[in-house]
Amino acid sequence: MSVDSQVDTQDADLQLIDALARGELRIAARLITRIESGDSSVASILSKLHARGGNTTVLGVTGPPGAGKSTLVDRLLQQFRHRGQRVAVLAVDPSSPFSGGAILGDRIRMNQHSADEGVFIRSMAARGRLGGLAVAAGDALQVLDAMGWDLIVVETVGVGQSEIDILRHAHTVVIVQTPASGDAVQSVKAGLLEVGDIFVVNKADTAGADRMQSNLREATAFRADPHDPACWLPPVLKTQATYGSGIDAVIEAIDAHTHHRLTHPARWAQRLRAQMRVLLLEQLIDLQRRRTVEDPAHQQRFERALDEVLARRCDPHTAARKLLDASE
Amino acid sequence: MSVDSQVDTQDADLQLIDALARGELRIAARLITRIESGDSSVASILSKLHARGGNTTVLGVTGPPGAGKSTLVDRLLQQFRHRGQRVAVLAVDPSSPFSGGAILGDRIRMNQHSADEGVFIRSMAARGRLGGLAVAAGDALQVLDAMGWDLIVVETVGVGQSEIDILRHAHTVVIVQTPASGDAVQSVKAGLLEVGDIFVVNKADTAGADRMQSNLREATAFRADPHDPACWLPPVLKTQATYGSGIDAVIEAIDAHTHHRLTHPARWAQRLRAQMRVLLLEQLIDLQRRRTVEDPAHQQRFERALDEVLARRCDPHTAARKLLDASE
Repeated sequence: MSVDSQVDTQDADLQLIDALARGELRIAARLITRIESGDSSVASILSKLHARGGNTTVLGVTGPPGAGKSTLVDRLLQQFRHRGQRVAVLAVDPSSPFSGGAILGDRIRMNQHSADEGVFIRSMAARGRLGGLAVAAGDALQVLDAMGWDLIVVETVGVGQSEIDILRHAHTVVIVQTPASGDAVQSVKAGLLEVGDIFVVNKADTAGADRMQSNLREATAFRADPHDPACWLPPVLKTQATYGSGIDAVIEAIDAHTHHRLTHPARWAQRLRAQMRVLLLEQLIDLQRRRTVEDPAHQQRFERALDEVLARRCDPHTAARKLLDASE
Repeated sequence: MSVDSQVDTQDADLQLIDALARGELRIAARLITRIESGDSSVASILSKLHARGGNTTVLGVTGPPGAGKSTLVDRLLQQFRHRGQRVAVLAVDPSSPFSGGAILGDRIRMNQHSADEGVFIRSMAARGRLGGLAVAAGDALQVLDAMGWDLIVVETVGVGQSEIDILRHAHTVVIVQTPASGDAVQSVKAGLLEVGDIFVVNKADTAGADRMQSNLREATAFRADPHDPACWLPPVLKTQATYGSGIDAVIEAIDAHTHHRLTHPARWAQRLRAQMRVLLLEQLIDLQRRRTVEDPAHQQRFERALDEVLARRCDPHTAARKLLDASE
């Protein structure tokens, strides 16, 4: 790249960042689309955003399909708006190839908030991306962070590992379950028991809600530390998001967790480091994956190794070790 | 390692492999425990197993928690046993830290088949493993493959990416849903629509079963290829596993798929290559992850990069690129 075009890129980047800071939704949407499709030319913008970012509180919400996450988030949005907070929502669906579906869902939700400039809802799918959704979600969150929202909500559909990784971008994590999710041990993934700051049993009017609540209390009891009276023990709350009941208590818990975080900065720094450690490892792996898939020399070596494995002349472990050694 | 101890290892490996071939369950169980805990000393055994393996048909079964997978698998087991087939089941729960839970589940299931030497059920969790569960499951399947079972069933709990990757070890993939799983678009992950060979709507006596069935038919219609009349179009079947109804049709579909696979070897070779490509990439990433986490030099560089990112002097993308370049 010539010096001139480097200056041009720098200029274009700064203009984009200014537009984001002015809150231009179309610019944000376009950037997120580029991130979603794996366009690596956004790296220079993201690098600049990172230097200035990290200022907006990120609330993570997850749970199994059908738990009523979106309804709960919409109820929370209403409350945040009541308090005058401007909120962006990133809804991540790791596996949906149905952009139509996601957009339809967004439209329905956007209609509800369409007259409201203080709300921005954006879906993100994983179509075309090879792994690394947590990385892509982190990039999209950086774009939203640069826009000066008072709060960012990241909502993930599903209960897999990539969703757990996405939650590592959040300051406060809300896990939504229903009595129908089955027994707590089976339905709440281990990782979620560890990363959840607040647990919500939604659809609390259906049978088994109390049992689910006490199961979750038991399952999260390991988080209590007798030697550390100031540690955060996740509350387990019941809601009926459809009727708006129990929402106030969730808001209170979110506020309490934010207060806890701000009054225990050393503890928070520790958690942030642990979260970022996983995310940086994901970045590293994402990049390794891209290089293997996209670089022709790597690719050729890889396909030859694949031939050996398929012919059973070499096992996958040995093949992987040889490939990695060859690239070092 | 001295030449003597190498010979000893070789000897010990061959003895283990002989014991596996004789069907010694305790040896298999112990090897799988070592694989589970990430013990890299099993590599030499796995390498020898790979050279001889790939002979047993692997049936993959997955679906969301509470869909009735275990019940369905138990019903299928009964039928396979009726036909005199000896079957091993590997039940993979990517996130359960509750080995107690898994063992309890196994015990209940084993009781049912306890007098039957033709069935072996083994759970596998991800405790202590950093990612790479598909790799670990593949290793465990290789152990079972060496034991001369007529059929291996790999059952995965959940619907995340690692489960989809685990299914890449299977010759035939059964996806279990229920009417309560919500609408097909939301609940059946995209990857599953692509890898499923047979779809089952279990709990077919509950409301919405027909709609679920037709939704799934619609959602899998993209698999039909008008230019390829011999392509496999996944059947969508209804079952009530608890009452044993609909099981015969599932068995027929499994047999039909096996027949299809054996009568279209070129097509199967293509699929096997595509599956193995993803698995080898996972191996590579697993190894990269281990080296980053376990090698002190890598680790130190990594922690320094983490410092830079947390201080916002460097963004995660750039940090990852620098780390990877430094290790090449």
